[in-house]
Amino acid sequence: MSLDPVLSRIDADIDASLERLMALLRIPSISTDPAYKEDVARAADWMAEDLRSLGADASVRPTAGHPMVVGHVDGPGPHLLFYGHYDVQPVDPLELWHRDPFDPAIEDTDKGRVMRGRGASDDKGQLMTFIEACRAWKAVHGALPCKITFLLEGEEESGSPSLVPFMEENADELRADIALICDTGMYDADTPAITTQLRGMVTEQIDLTCANRDLHSGLYGGMAANPIYILTKILAGLKDDSGRCTLPGFYDDVPELDPELKAQWDSLNFDPAQFLGEVGLSHPAGESDRTPLEMIWSRPTAEVNGIWGGYTGEGFKTVIPSQAHAKVSFRLVGQQDPDKISAAFRDYVRGAIPPDASVDFPLGKGAMAGHMNTDHPAYEKARDALSDEWNTQAVFVGMGGSIPIAGHFKTVLGMDALLVGYGNKDDQIHSPNEKYNLRSFHKGARSWARILDALTR
Amino acid sequence: MSLDPVLSRIDADIDASLERLMALLRIPSISTDPAYKEDVARAADWMAEDLRSLGADASVRPTAGHPMVVGHVDGPGPHLLFYGHYDVQPVDPLELWHRDPFDPAIEDTDKGRVMRGRGASDDKGQLMTFIEACRAWKAVHGALPCKITFLLEGEEESGSPSLVPFMEENADELRADIALICDTGMYDADTPAITTQLRGMVTEQIDLTCANRDLHSGLYGGMAANPIYILTKILAGLKDDSGRCTLPGFYDDVPELDPELKAQWDSLNFDPAQFLGEVGLSHPAGESDRTPLEMIWSRPTAEVNGIWGGYTGEGFKTVIPSQAHAKVSFRLVGQQDPDKISAAFRDYVRGAIPPDASVDFPLGKGAMAGHMNTDHPAYEKARDALSDEWNTQAVFVGMGGSIPIAGHFKTVLGMDALLVGYGNKDDQIHSPNEKYNLRSFHKGARSWARILDALTR
Repeated sequence: MSLDPVLSRIDADIDASLERLMALLRIPSISTDPAYKEDVARAADWMAEDLRSLGADASVRPTAGHPMVVGHVDGPGPHLLFYGHYDVQPVDPLELWHRDPFDPAIEDTDKGRVMRGRGASDDKGQLMTFIEACRAWKAVHGALPCKITFLLEGEEESGSPSLVPFMEENADELRADIALICDTGMYDADTPAITTQLRGMVTEQIDLTCANRDLHSGLYGGMAANPIYILTKILAGLKDDSGRCTLPGFYDDVPELDPELKAQWDSLNFDPAQFLGEVGLSHPAGESDRTPLEMIWSRPTAEVNGIWGGYTGEGFKTVIPSQAHAKVSFRLVGQQDPDKISAAFRDYVRGAIPPDASVDFPLGKGAMAGHMNTDHPAYEKARDALSDEWNTQAVFVGMGGSIPIAGHFKTVLGMDALLVGYGNKDDQIHSPNEKYNLRSFHKGARSWARILDALTR
Repeated sequence: MSLDPVLSRIDADIDASLERLMALLRIPSISTDPAYKEDVARAADWMAEDLRSLGADASVRPTAGHPMVVGHVDGPGPHLLFYGHYDVQPVDPLELWHRDPFDPAIEDTDKGRVMRGRGASDDKGQLMTFIEACRAWKAVHGALPCKITFLLEGEEESGSPSLVPFMEENADELRADIALICDTGMYDADTPAITTQLRGMVTEQIDLTCANRDLHSGLYGGMAANPIYILTKILAGLKDDSGRCTLPGFYDDVPELDPELKAQWDSLNFDPAQFLGEVGLSHPAGESDRTPLEMIWSRPTAEVNGIWGGYTGEGFKTVIPSQAHAKVSFRLVGQQDPDKISAAFRDYVRGAIPPDASVDFPLGKGAMAGHMNTDHPAYEKARDALSDEWNTQAVFVGMGGSIPIAGHFKTVLGMDALLVGYGNKDDQIHSPNEKYNLRSFHKGARSWARILDALTR
């Protein structure tokens, strides 16, 4: 089955492909907010219906949380599993969006045409690149080139609580020769990348309580324990002046970077001034003895992602609140154990609070870092296919984010995974005004067609 | 003019008095929130109308903010000025109220009957004790016992921005022999008090900005400056391990307590375990080398009253926010200068932020501490009148809160002030479920009748 007519078909069908993506983007499938439960279900139905149009035996599969969408297409040759997620991040602060996040549109920007809307890049636009490649292949050849299983998740942005149980319960159905995951980015706007190294993550929430009700700081100020102040001391103590995390044992399982990989990274000529300059910053703020690429790709982090307590409205209210709260996350690398890091964090917090304070940890969720098996032959084939499409050598990169699914394919199903995606650093995923370059969408679909061709030839 | 029939009239009229208070409490006059501007104006109209029913020449006087209500009743003898405020605190968190804060009701509790609602104690219930005393006096004797000017403010809970300009512009109209201020509390449920020492206050807000937009912690975490973390370091550094504020010069103008007053305070047998136990605490959290009463009455404080930034909803969002915010207040004593403390705070914050952060201070507002002139003869007369009503010796006390008005009467109008009020520590002012004991309301009105009698005899 020849590749060129498939690529031509993708080109010819691009407007209809964008219409389909917009229909999917209009569904506000925010998985972390219970108010959007029906919308997440609606997105799952939409995905299953679209998979059926590819000839897949597709179904929406209930879980304890949001459903999985699973589809199978039979065929010759290797068995590929494709993974993407159809849920999206919350949209707040809504006032910073210049359009309704769920009324997507194509916009002209100084970096070319983009699709604007929540999920345009993460991950609806990305997962549709693979589906559009399959659609073109079927239209041209009447069938897909090999056996493909689709696994589309609706809880990726809320910590994937149902994923491992679902994989375990359906292991025979899901096991394939390799997993293709489309949820990562390019190295830069012109250089395609395969992500071979991912940071893991632990997410925690601190609920700190002192008095049994909010107090007037005139009556009690100076004598009553203030949970906001206690919380600031706890959080400020999480790192030392050199940017290192202070939790005991935090760096025990953190490896030094492989010299060969470090040499490849150094050759990328990463420009931290440009990287930070795009978001209005200029100074790398991580560990003072590490290179910027190490900071974001191969070193663990401790970050406060949210904090709240007391009076936060207009004007002033002289309250000493009963409670204060924070959301804290750790990015993990190497063999750092999420359970061990979570325990060290909770021990630290419990040890840091005074007698009148109590603490709850209502979240707590972790995944180890991932290191892909680049010896798998799919890696070289995919690298060549990407290099052909983008006319420049594709690179192996690390990634600061966490995609626990890659590790789960290995540990639960014994499968290797190949992470290819076409996102750009300025896509503003998880932020207001998320977008996906039409170039990413179009050449992304073409790239997948080339990779399907390479893996099945 | 004899006192006894006035006291009897207060007793007989108590139900009607409570009805009037409830009508006033139904007006949600939250001065700090612009959404309630019309309601504040409505409360001002209500107050002026009620003063007219006492025979006062009363008017609502516009200011740059919320209006003042001024009323005059001519008469013989000394000229008294009565001050109270008709605005109230915000009501959040609303879900902690067990009834609509602006649908007041009388409730039976294990400490007796109370009026429940926002402003029941602070300050609508308190100011109406004086007005009801006047109403009874006029009903019995046909006229008030002396010349009285009423000054009712609508901005006390939002920092009184218009008060000093209004006093300056209307100095001749407002100047009297002494100011009576009803916005303070009893020493305990059975012991009336005159407040002779008040802390001053500085209120500040920190708006800290790093990146020009919210960032994904997977892409930027470990390298991008995190404003929440920077803010926690700044706030944690405001106090040392012994509870002392670290701002340079903070204690320069803080006097040691007068030995005589300290002896009187020690004789009060203040029980910190009980005081803290009522709100679920047990350990005094202030300066480790000070007594609990010093902590809340005569020592300066630094408190964080609110903090917010990043993702604060359900679940988790791995964001490094662009901004983080905090509201910080300092209670001042002695000769501490609010401008000097504000400047020291801002210098400290500016010196503590890294190169990629910028800071704004959108608030900033201060008042010096107040020390009343207890040599004024009104003090002894009022102490005796209170002791007669409550059948126990009234005491002179300090107060942790700030009532800048007392200082303004002295500095702007050259008048001494007498602070008498009937609030209880468990009134939950500034908190959900605010209440005022009916005993405070009833005996408060009777106390004012006795004080009017004592000051005009």
